[in-house]
Amino acid sequence: MPQLLLLEGLRRVDPATPLLRADDLGVLRGESVFETLRIAAGRPAFLAAHLARLAVSADRLDLALPQGWEELALMACDGVDEGVLRLVCAKGPPPLGFALVTDIPADAVRGRTFGVPAVTLTLGVTAAQRAEAPYLLGGVKSTSYAVNMATLRHARTLGAEEAIWMSSDGEVLEAPTATVALIVDGVLVTPPTSVGILAGTTLGAVLALDRVPCDVRRVTAHELQTADEVMLLSSVRGVAPVVSLDGRELGVGPVTADLRDAFEASLIS
Amino acid sequence: MPQLLLLEGLRRVDPATPLLRADDLGVLRGESVFETLRIAAGRPAFLAAHLARLAVSADRLDLALPQGWEELALMACDGVDEGVLRLVCAKGPPPLGFALVTDIPADAVRGRTFGVPAVTLTLGVTAAQRAEAPYLLGGVKSTSYAVNMATLRHARTLGAEEAIWMSSDGEVLEAPTATVALIVDGVLVTPPTSVGILAGTTLGAVLALDRVPCDVRRVTAHELQTADEVMLLSSVRGVAPVVSLDGRELGVGPVTADLRDAFEASLIS
Repeated sequence: MPQLLLLEGLRRVDPATPLLRADDLGVLRGESVFETLRIAAGRPAFLAAHLARLAVSADRLDLALPQGWEELALMACDGVDEGVLRLVCAKGPPPLGFALVTDIPADAVRGRTFGVPAVTLTLGVTAAQRAEAPYLLGGVKSTSYAVNMATLRHARTLGAEEAIWMSSDGEVLEAPTATVALIVDGVLVTPPTSVGILAGTTLGAVLALDRVPCDVRRVTAHELQTADEVMLLSSVRGVAPVVSLDGRELGVGPVTADLRDAFEASLIS
Repeated sequence: MPQLLLLEGLRRVDPATPLLRADDLGVLRGESVFETLRIAAGRPAFLAAHLARLAVSADRLDLALPQGWEELALMACDGVDEGVLRLVCAKGPPPLGFALVTDIPADAVRGRTFGVPAVTLTLGVTAAQRAEAPYLLGGVKSTSYAVNMATLRHARTLGAEEAIWMSSDGEVLEAPTATVALIVDGVLVTPPTSVGILAGTTLGAVLALDRVPCDVRRVTAHELQTADEVMLLSSVRGVAPVVSLDGRELGVGPVTADLRDAFEASLIS
């Protein structure tokens, strides 16, 4: 199933063939930008939003993003009904863009359907810090993702599958690969990008369905721990209920289930 | 000049040839470990210390480090009098190890000789934070280095060439690619690894020269700003005097110059 398509010349290559030079700054310094998209009904979902974010990330990394991503994404999805599309641009020099198509992992479907146990873990920074210090790269989707992956491994050692990063001053930030949202008295509450988090494309798409009132504002640990429902939003898994948080049982809440199902339906309509 | 040697089979390959697969976790997630060594007098300097640190980093990234690095490093330096040796292991799967040999950059020699202007920049975390939260990967040398590079770019926008990362509670941490040391009343003062920083191999080698008393302890911003001398220690540049810090002129101090020259002499003796 894995398929690899190069941005330059829209050339299909065997994914088992080496692609990146050893001295690419994407390889040596984690200076690549990327986006992960869901392929649904043969199309890359929310492509424009992902490409806009890719451009922002590239700018923050001082990476001269080449053109042609829309055509690349569409061609990569050609003949693929469902799947995962990764768009990656390594810094080079010169920058090297490619699209990688893989199957949807079984645990993504499982997490969406049955929910995920999560724990809160500190990211060590205050909520204001990353907006004030742009070089800390809050809100940038780069391949410098080792801390994200280590956080998820750490969560698993605590018996969870997911982590919610908290600021050192007790606010909700984001998950290593997802946006966090709560349901409080029927309102979807989610932190603003001004706390240094990624602008969630799935969050944007879910809000556009207009099924629930939304309040984008800073969120305290107390609000998280007493929320009626908690969910994680990301491209491939979609809307995943947090069924337990730091040991507190939450189950699959009705608003989360409705948003999840409506979001899934919207992808194939 | 660039030369590339693979760990597996100790095979020499053209560095212009693509080496890494698009789906390698080193490429997609910055989950590679690396070490940068100086090649001096035809030998990889302080190889044992670098290999020990590489193993620690790999362990923290849950990367099954293959064997054979000493032989790889020695063979990569064969016939090279002076240069830079990068040892890298991408996570794969399977893990892919390689050695990359390049020329010593001109700015490394210039920084060592004439010193570097530096600014302090916050890393956003407290001094205790990274030791308490191991998943934040303090002290791990991975290729998730985008923040390190962005910090250096930010320092350049402020008219400096280097940055010294401070904790959010006002302690000296490290530089994006170097260890920080001060001279205070003739004593070399440098922060401990318990503040989440990398164990400096060059610092270890300089201290082994036994030319100056050393005090490894937590260091405040005030001590940094009033130090007699400030220096940055790293493998390729060696001992680089910080000639100005946040605009305060420091020049090339006598203790720093002595350590620098003694260190350089030790490399070729």
